[in-house]
Formats: sequence, structure tokens, C-alpha cells
Amino acid sequence: MAEKMRAVRKVRPGPGLEITEIDIPRIKPNEVLVKVRATSICGTDVHIYKWDAWSQSRIKPPITIGHEFCGDVVEVGSEVRSLKVGDFISADSHIFDGTCHVCRNGQPHICQNLVIFGVDTNGSYAEYVAVPETSAWKNDPDLDPAIGSIQDPLGNAVYAVLCEPITGKSVAIFGDGPIGLFAIGVARASGASRIYHIGKYPARIAIGKQMGTDVAINVADGGVVERIMDDTHGLGVDVAIEMTGNQTAVDESLAVLRKGGRWVAFGIPSQPITIDLNKSVIFKGITIYGINGRQLWQSWMQMQGLFRAGFDPSPVITHRIKLDEFQKGFDLMTAADRQAAKIVMYP
Amino acid sequence: MAEKMRAVRKVRPGPGLEITEIDIPRIKPNEVLVKVRATSICGTDVHIYKWDAWSQSRIKPPITIGHEFCGDVVEVGSEVRSLKVGDFISADSHIFDGTCHVCRNGQPHICQNLVIFGVDTNGSYAEYVAVPETSAWKNDPDLDPAIGSIQDPLGNAVYAVLCEPITGKSVAIFGDGPIGLFAIGVARASGASRIYHIGKYPARIAIGKQMGTDVAINVADGGVVERIMDDTHGLGVDVAIEMTGNQTAVDESLAVLRKGGRWVAFGIPSQPITIDLNKSVIFKGITIYGINGRQLWQSWMQMQGLFRAGFDPSPVITHRIKLDEFQKGFDLMTAADRQAAKIVMYP
Amino acid sequence: MAEKMRAVRKVRPGPGLEITEIDIPRIKPNEVLVKVRATSICGTDVHIYKWDAWSQSRIKPPITIGHEFCGDVVEVGSEVRSLKVGDFISADSHIFDGTCHVCRNGQPHICQNLVIFGVDTNGSYAEYVAVPETSAWKNDPDLDPAIGSIQDPLGNAVYAVLCEPITGKSVAIFGDGPIGLFAIGVARASGASRIYHIGKYPARIAIGKQMGTDVAINVADGGVVERIMDDTHGLGVDVAIEMTGNQTAVDESLAVLRKGGRWVAFGIPSQPITIDLNKSVIFKGITIYGINGRQLWQSWMQMQGLFRAGFDPSPVITHRIKLDEFQKGFDLMTAADRQAAKIVMYP
Amino acid sequence: MAEKMRAVRKVRPGPGLEITEIDIPRIKPNEVLVKVRATSICGTDVHIYKWDAWSQSRIKPPITIGHEFCGDVVEVGSEVRSLKVGDFISADSHIFDGTCHVCRNGQPHICQNLVIFGVDTNGSYAEYVAVPETSAWKNDPDLDPAIGSIQDPLGNAVYAVLCEPITGKSVAIFGDGPIGLFAIGVARASGASRIYHIGKYPARIAIGKQMGTDVAINVADGGVVERIMDDTHGLGVDVAIEMTGNQTAVDESLAVLRKGGRWVAFGIPSQPITIDLNKSVIFKGITIYGINGRQLWQSWMQMQGLFRAGFDPSPVITHRIKLDEFQKGFDLMTAADRQAAKIVMYP
Repeated sequence: MAEKMRAVRKVRPGPGLEITEIDIPRIKPNEVLVKVRATSICGTDVHIYKWDAWSQSRIKPPITIGHEFCGDVVEVGSEVRSLKVGDFISADSHIFDGTCHVCRNGQPHICQNLVIFGVDTNGSYAEYVAVPETSAWKNDPDLDPAIGSIQDPLGNAVYAVLCEPITGKSVAIFGDGPIGLFAIGVARASGASRIYHIGKYPARIAIGKQMGTDVAINVADGGVVERIMDDTHGLGVDVAIEMTGNQTAVDESLAVLRKGGRWVAFGIPSQPITIDLNKSVIFKGITIYGINGRQLWQSWMQMQGLFRAGFDPSPVITHRIKLDEFQKGFDLMTAADRQAAKIVMYP
Repeated sequence: MAEKMRAVRKVRPGPGLEITEIDIPRIKPNEVLVKVRATSICGTDVHIYKWDAWSQSRIKPPITIGHEFCGDVVEVGSEVRSLKVGDFISADSHIFDGTCHVCRNGQPHICQNLVIFGVDTNGSYAEYVAVPETSAWKNDPDLDPAIGSIQDPLGNAVYAVLCEPITGKSVAIFGDGPIGLFAIGVARASGASRIYHIGKYPARIAIGKQMGTDVAINVADGGVVERIMDDTHGLGVDVAIEMTGNQTAVDESLAVLRKGGRWVAFGIPSQPITIDLNKSVIFKGITIYGINGRQLWQSWMQMQGLFRAGFDPSPVITHRIKLDEFQKGFDLMTAADRQAAKIVMYP
Repeated sequence: MAEKMRAVRKVRPGPGLEITEIDIPRIKPNEVLVKVRATSICGTDVHIYKWDAWSQSRIKPPITIGHEFCGDVVEVGSEVRSLKVGDFISADSHIFDGTCHVCRNGQPHICQNLVIFGVDTNGSYAEYVAVPETSAWKNDPDLDPAIGSIQDPLGNAVYAVLCEPITGKSVAIFGDGPIGLFAIGVARASGASRIYHIGKYPARIAIGKQMGTDVAINVADGGVVERIMDDTHGLGVDVAIEMTGNQTAVDESLAVLRKGGRWVAFGIPSQPITIDLNKSVIFKGITIYGINGRQLWQSWMQMQGLFRAGFDPSPVITHRIKLDEFQKGFDLMTAADRQAAKIVMYP
Repeated sequence: MAEKMRAVRKVRPGPGLEITEIDIPRIKPNEVLVKVRATSICGTDVHIYKWDAWSQSRIKPPITIGHEFCGDVVEVGSEVRSLKVGDFISADSHIFDGTCHVCRNGQPHICQNLVIFGVDTNGSYAEYVAVPETSAWKNDPDLDPAIGSIQDPLGNAVYAVLCEPITGKSVAIFGDGPIGLFAIGVARASGASRIYHIGKYPARIAIGKQMGTDVAINVADGGVVERIMDDTHGLGVDVAIEMTGNQTAVDESLAVLRKGGRWVAFGIPSQPITIDLNKSVIFKGITIYGINGRQLWQSWMQMQGLFRAGFDPSPVITHRIKLDEFQKGFDLMTAADRQAAKIVMYP
């Protein structure tokens, strides 16, 4: 095996990324070495690329970024029992310690000592990546590597949609980022009765329709609440999933929720949010789930099960490029028209 | 309105049914009068037709039988608030009192004082039927009346499949009666990952495939447990649903269930069943649900939601005949080849 | 039976209440007539007494107020099946229709067409009151009538504390109104591991200790968050129950909640609340329950079960007076020192 | 530190145990060495002592047995992060791999590759024992070591009683082994409304009363079903927990369960059990939980929380002896009068 590999890295503080040649990672006894087949671009990667305030406080260059990927196990640590050379795996980006109170309570995805792949450790924008056994997920061998690489964000959608049963229920999904679009598909594949999608970019709303939207509303057209309340004969929806972090979307998603419904907080607001607890939460008797990450490993099991049932998230994957073309990928991700949704890169 | 109507009745103890002319029911203040659009034949009706031991102890002729139906409200009792003339409704066959401990605990489908439609009261094999408001379910106006009439048994399947989330899970369904076939479709529409169907009549197994079976096994071919364990790589299925009441099916459905899985008891055995509690229940750490009826009204909501999502149970409806042809329907239901699954009759 | 009775009423718009003589209610076929044994004063009654903005928009005088009570059935409507003369009953103040979508979904306590006892109908500050069968709850015959009368607010506490299991969990209860004090007792009786009580009136905090507080904090002393985080070794509590409607209490109750914990919104804010969804809800992965009313009838069953287990909420009942002394009761309820918690009146 | 220690071992196939001097265990990088403070006798240990058929097929002498214990960490493996010298710990006897499908589904207590402490590995009847970090549980420092040692069986009771909420519910507990007696206490501490205890040894039934039984029934007196049905006014109990493995107890515990109730299968039958699925499971609409082990680590959290709330299981600990007196302990465990319940041994 070669000793060097190409990797896309934040080599020093400041905007941008560089492709460089570095040593192939040496694995610890509890890790496997993975030859990356595909790795995709997350909004978090764009934050790091831009070197925004959050990145400046969190990222310690030099570091290889990237946390959405799949690949083949090429070397296995001495203590690893459940994986072998040749396994086709992905990883969850939430590396948990397994021993804190929250992990032991069955919630490792929000471990008290969470370490994020490609943020706090060297990530997957490279030919090889080291993965702890406890973070690895074995894919079905025939899974398209492009889909294999986007399971981390797809898993977010799975958790957000399925944190309570959705079958036979109506759902309004606010937001047209890739995870919002995935959520539409998950809801459709899980038997949701009627799916309302509220977005703002026509290209994304169009992908949403491919994923299964019944009623698409562009916020530019207004009347979000009225249209949904009319269509539900005044009842409102069973489930509202907020994936924008925007105050107006919070207000509208709560307004269209029926009494006793479920509201999912997923979109990350950039500032505190105001909520009329009386009217929107207490008198309505609703339940709210704050969703971060994916259930380890129930969300992955559900996702794999949906693949086996024929669920295809590929309409959300708008571009497939080489890792060497990463700059093009980041240009697309920041383009004003949001023609790109999910971009997969092949090393 | 006419004062007389045709009805198919058990007019006296003994086998068979007769079509007769009787008075149109007079409704009570809390009832509506329904002009029946379609009514379907249940296995329970066949028991009554044959006048078996159970029927002899339970049925008090003369009585109009039939409890699966839909129709239009033509008259509304003085205390009824939620229905009006012209509504297209069905009814749940489990008439509950609403005040017993079990009803008040949120389980009216197993009310302590349950009265069964068309068994303990005059039923739907007629031009008109009286329905208590608390038992009525408003259908979407464009629902095919044939489907409208089979919601009672379809709702059984909905409850059996969805008593815990099924999305992304593997499931083995034992039994090829109409409810077993419906269960396949419900599992498919709800995103089950892989569906194993175990039956014994080729005609029924074929319908199962139309409803969504991935792996069909005819018990005549043997190897049920081996085939499922092989296909699941030795893990077993997440969910096993027993819809035959047969000891062998009980044994096999428990054998193919994974550790920590869910087992559903639905099929009515004709004699006590032997279970190895140690191996099959305790050390496996499984959960068992005894399922009777349908959750009022959550199962109906899920069913309506699945219809709105495009779920179509009509492959199970093999025959559509006139109510006057009821004799042909019962002949088909008791034919050895089980070519008929669900038979809908139009008054 | 007499034809007239004494009742405490809002006879015309404006502050105050009057005791008057009016006709004993005539019951409908689905109601029972109850001779009131005890009726207690709710904060809502104080709002009506004061004739605040909410009261002016909602209450239509003349009306007998009061919705917390117990008494003996003295007359039974013709359609009532589950009650008989001599039964000792209470009622839930949330009168539901039983046929709306939300009721049929198992959530009648937040019925889409909710009618509130003693707010929208004539209530229990009287010698007799008419109660719909569907709203009546049969008490154990030996229940202290004072306790019988306070089950509506105690049931609020039962629902707020037990909407998820509390056994073995730590809980912080913010608020020292009667329902907050009841909540302490319910948590204690249900096996909560450690109970933090945050209040502001020394008299109420003292009652909280009688109910089972482990760690009492007066907000005047400050350091609420620090004290709880220290005591939980930095983890935070499993459950936080917000019963004040105050922005600071919302902030602090979210701050002391552990990752993956449960937050209960119960206190009614007088204005919109600001929440840092990122930090407090999403990254923490918490679940929020908006609680209004009591589960019908599961909360009542739990409450009755707790009584049978020996649970005694009577320390919260600070005063027992005659209904004729209602003015004294309202004076106590509005006194600055909050020496009074729950006041029970006997007609 | 010494290099040798005393240990009670099965040194060769055949009945009995011997105390011998062996090397103190050398720990692996992921283990800690524990100086045992207390270790208690489980029924499983009695099986091994007697060398019954199960033992002969499972146990590979020489081996130190014992799996219920607590002690102090005296040495820490190089990869252990969550424990340090001086920690006072216990361990769960179910050693799980953490990577199998069932573990990753949140059910490690029934891991597909389960290894049992003191059965498949050297156990705790010794001065020192090696414990994997993933199996260790940190006790509160002031916990009585006798109680510290019995948490494995007490945890069984916690899981059996609390696998669904018990607060405010009635429960019938069949069986008077130590875990049955613990279950009574757990139900009482968790707010169960009324506790029926069905046993056969007067000494054990007496301990049950100390733990909180409301109604004790000795099977020798007969009338189990009648007495419980009478006392519940014909409704039956909300929860029945079968902890004997006996056919009659299975029958009776199902007979006294109300419609829609919960049945827990815990007692290990020595032969297949016959169940009337129709009458007892399906038409009643009950839920059955097969319980093995304890939820990792939710049951331990609940148990620790109950200790903090004041729950005291010590009445079940009838004898406290030295480890050197182990022979006396096993004599007591096999005595016909069952005066002994739980026996704690101090090395």
C-alpha cells in the first residue's frame, strides 16, 4: 500500500481549502482503515470552508475535513471484532464515548463528550480515513456509493421524520435544504398520508416533488398557513418539521399543527426564537422533539430497511464530481440559485 | 322513503341464510340511518351461515347479519351532532359503551361490554342499517364503496401491523386469509424493509405478491424457518405476525423472530397453544401483542391516511356481486381452492 | 327535594361574586344531578372574580362559577347507564364532544370543541350541579370530600409529572402554586429520585417540603442553576417542569435539564417566551410536552391509584370554609403572602 | 499488593464448591481490577453448586463462580476512561459485545453474543475480580455493600416491574423467590396502587409484606383467582408478573389480568407452557413482555434513583456471612423452609 494520499484540508486559519499530499492514517487497535469510495459535502463543511465565526472557534488546522462518506475496509485494528477487510462501510459523524450517563441512557447520538468526525478529527475528504469500530456501519454490498456517502444527513431526516410513527399521518416540512428534501422522501416511503413542502428555491422545490411532495408552497407566494389549514379542512397537520431555523417558519409550522400534534425542531436558528407557549404549545397540547444527529443505530437500521424496501434518495444528489474538483463543489454549494442540493465527490 | 327493504337474514336456528323483506330500521336519537352501498363477507359471517357451535351459542335469530359495510346517511337522530344527511360512512363493528374502565383507559375496541355489529344487533346485509353515531366513521367522499366496505378487516391488519412502528423493519406474516393479505399491503405501504409471506393456498399467495410480498413460502414446500433464517443471515425478522391460529405457525413464527423482536397474536386457535416460554419469549426478550379489533379510532385514521397516500387494497377483493347473489358468495367463501379472498356485495 | 338552592355567581359584568338563590338545575337525559359536598377555588375562579380581560371576553353572566368539586348523585338522567343515585362523584372540567378528530385520536382533554365547566356552563359553587355522564368520575366511597374536590388541579399535576415515567428520575419543579405543590407530591409518591423545588413564597415552599421536596430553592436567594447543576454533579436533571409561565423560570428550567431530558410546559405565560432553540432544545435533544388539562381518564386512574397507595395531597389544602364564606376565600387567594394554597368550600 | 487470593470455585465437574488460593486476575487494557466488598448467592449459583444438567452443559471448570457483587477499583486498564482507582462499583452480569444488531438496536442486555459473568468467565466469589469497563456501574459511595451486591437480581425486578409505567396501577406478583420479593418493593416505591402477592413459603410471604404487599395469598389456601377478582370488583389487575415458571401460576396470572393489561414472563419454566391464546391474550388485547436481565443501563439508573429516593431492599437480605462460610450459605439456599432469601457473603 502507498504511504501517502491526497486529502482536501484546512491547512491554516482562513477561508478556503487545499488539496495536499499527507501520510495515510495509522489506525489504533480499535479502528479500521477505510479506502474512501465517495464523500459528500455538508453545510457544515461550507461553514468551515468560509471560515465563519463558529469555524474559527471550533476548528484547529491543519485538519482534513469531511464527515459524510463510505468506503472499503482495507486494514483492521487488533481489537476490532465486528469488521473485516473488504467490508463496505459508512460512519456516523457523532463519535460517542459509550460510558457517559447520556450514552448509557440509550442516547449516544447526544453523548456528553461528543466528538464530531471531520470537525474534531481528521475526516473523509481524502483517499483514506481511520474509523473507530464503534462508529462504523456496514452497508449492503450493492449500495450505490453515492447513496452510501449521504447517509449521515439522510439519517438526520430519518430521525426527524420517524422519532414518532408517521404512517398514515399528514406532515408539513419547512425547509428545502438537502435534509428537508430527504425528509420528504422518508415521509413518503413510510406511508405519510399527505406531505406539504414549504420552500423558497424553485430548483429545490422541484426536487421535493420528485421525492414525494403532495402540496408544494413557495414562501414567496405567501399564504402558507391559510393554504395548509384550508387543505386540512381547518384541522391542521399531524406533524410539522421545522428545518430552516427561521422565525417565520417556526411561527407558521406551529400555526398549522393540529391540537395534540408533533413538532420537530431541527433547523438551527442564528438567534433566539420567540414562541407563544400558551397558544402554540400548552393549549394545543403538542409534543416537541429537539433533533440532533441520528439515533445510534436505530435510525441507520430504519434507513437501511427503507433502502431494502426500494426507497431511493438519489434525486437529491444533483452533482457527482471528483474530489480533485472540490472547488467546483463549494462554488455550487454557495451559488445563489441553489441548483445544487447534495454533491458527492469521488477520491 | 319506502317502508320495507330486502335483507339477508338468519331467520331461524340452523344452517343457511335467507333473503326476506322486513321493515326499514327506525333509528334511536343517537343513531343515523344508512343506505348501504356495499357490504362484504367476513369469516364470522361464514361461521353464522354454517351455524357452527359458536354461532349456536351466540346468535339469536331472527337477525340480519353483516358488519362490514359503507353507505350514505339518509336520516339523522335528534342527538347526533357530528353527522348529517349525505355523509358517506362506514362503521366499526365493535360497539363500545364508552364508560367502562377499559374504554376510559383508551381501549374502547376491547370494551368490557362489547356488542358486535351484525352478531348481537341487526347488521348490514340489507338495504338500510341503523348505526350509532359513536360507531360511525366518515369516509372520504371519493372512496370506492368496495374499499369502504372492507375497512373493518383492513383495520384489523392496520392495527396488527402498526401496533408498533414497522417502517424499515422486516416482517413475517403467517396466514393467507384476507386479513393476512391486507397486512402484507399495509406493511409494504408503511415502509417495511422485507416482507415474508407464509401461506398454503397458491391463489392467495399470488394475491399476497400483488400486495407486496418479497419472499413467499408455501407451507407445503416446508423449510419455513430455514428459509427465513437464511435470508436474514441468521438474525431473524424484527416482527412476526401470526394470523392462522395454528400451532405450527405459532412455533415457526416464534422461531424466526429475532431477539428483542415483536410477535403479534391475531389468528384464533381452536385449542390451547403450547409455547416454550424460556427459549421463545424470555431469553429472547420479545414483546407480544394480542390484537383484537382495531384501535378506535387511530387505526381508522391510519387507514384513511394510507388511502390518501395511494394505498390500494383492492387486489384482495376478488369478487363483486349483488347482495341478492349472497348464496354464490358463501359458496365461494367455502370453496376448497380459496380462489375468493374478499367478496363485496351490493344491495 | 327543594326547588331552590344557594349559589355563588357572577350575576353581572364586573368584579366580585354574589351568593343568590336560584332554581336547582334540571338535568338532561345524559346528565346526573349532584348534591355538592365540597368545591374548591381555582386560580381561574380568581380571574373571573377580578373580572380581568380574559374573563370579560369569555364569561357570559349570569353564571354560577366553580369547576373543582365532588358530591353525591341524587338524580339520574334517562340515558345514563354507568351511574346511579348515591354514587360519590367528581367531574373533569374539560367537557369534550367525543366525536372530533382529536377526541377520536385519544386526546379528549384537548377536544377541538372543548367546553369548560363553570366557565362556559353553570358550575359547582352551589348546592347542586348538573354533570354529563361522560364527564363524571366515580370516587372511592371513603375519599375525603376535600380531596375529592381538588382532583381537577391534582390531575393536572399527575399528567404533568407522569406524561412520561418519573420513577427513579430527578425532577426540578418550578412554581409554588397549588399545582406545583401537588406535582412535588406526585413525583415523590411515584418514586422520583430527587426533587428540586423552586419557589418564591416561604409559606408555599414550606408546604412543598411537606409534599416531599429534597432541595428547596427560593428564587430570592438566586443561584438556581448553579445549585442544581452542582447537586447533580454537572449532569442536570432528567425532568424539568415549568409551572410559572415566567421567562426566567423558562430559562432556568431549560438550563438545568440534562441532554436528552424532558421539559414540561405548564405555566401560562402572559406574553411570548424567548427560547434559544439551538442550545436548549436541538443540541440537547430534549422532548417538550405542552400540558393542558388531564388525560381522560388515565390521569384520573393514576390519581385514584395513588390515593389507594396512600398518597395524601392534603398539606396543600390550607383552608376549609363554608361556601357562604366565599368572600373570605377569595380574600385569602389574593393575599400577598400566599399563606393559602388550596381552599375548599362546603355548601 | 498480594499476588494470591482466596476464591470459591468449581474446580472439577461434579457437585459442590471449594475454597482455594489462586492468582489475583491480571486485567486487560479495557478492564479494572476490583477488590470485592460483598458478593451474593444467586439461584444460578445453586444450580452450578448442585451440578445439574444445565451446569454440566454450560460450565467449564475450573472456574470461580459468582456474578452479584460490589467492590472497590484498585487497578485500572490502560484504555479505561470512565473509572479510576477508588471507585465503588458493581457490574451487570450480562457482558455484551456492543456491536451486534441487537446491541445496536438498544437492547444489549439480550446481546446476540452474550457472555455471563461467573458462568462463562471467572466471577466474584473471590477477593478480587476483573471487570470490563463496559460492564461496570459506579455506585453511590455511601451505598451499603450488601445492597451493592444484590443489584443484579434487584435490577431484574426493576426491569420486570418498570418495563411499562406502574405508578397508580394494580399489580399481581406471582412467586416468592428473592426477585419476586424485590419486585414487590419496586412496585411499592414506584406508586403501584395495590399489590397482590402470591407465594407458597410463609417466611417469604412475610418478607413480601415487609416490602409492601397489600394482599398476600398463599397458594396452599387456594382461591387465588377468586380473591383477586373479588378485590378488584371483577375488573382484574392492570399488571401481572409471573415469576415462578409454573403452569398454574401462568394460568392464574393470565386469569386475573384485566382486558388490555400487561403480563410479564419472567419465571423460567422447566417445560413448555400451554396458553389459551384466544381467551387470555387475543380477546383480552393484552401485551406480554419477556424479561431477561436488566436494561443496560436504564434499569440501573432507575434502581439508583429509587435508592436515592429512600427505597430499601434490605428486608430481602436475610443472611450476611463470610465468604469462607459459603457452605453454610448454600445449605441455607437449599433448605426446605426457604427461611433464607438473599444471602450476602463478605470476602
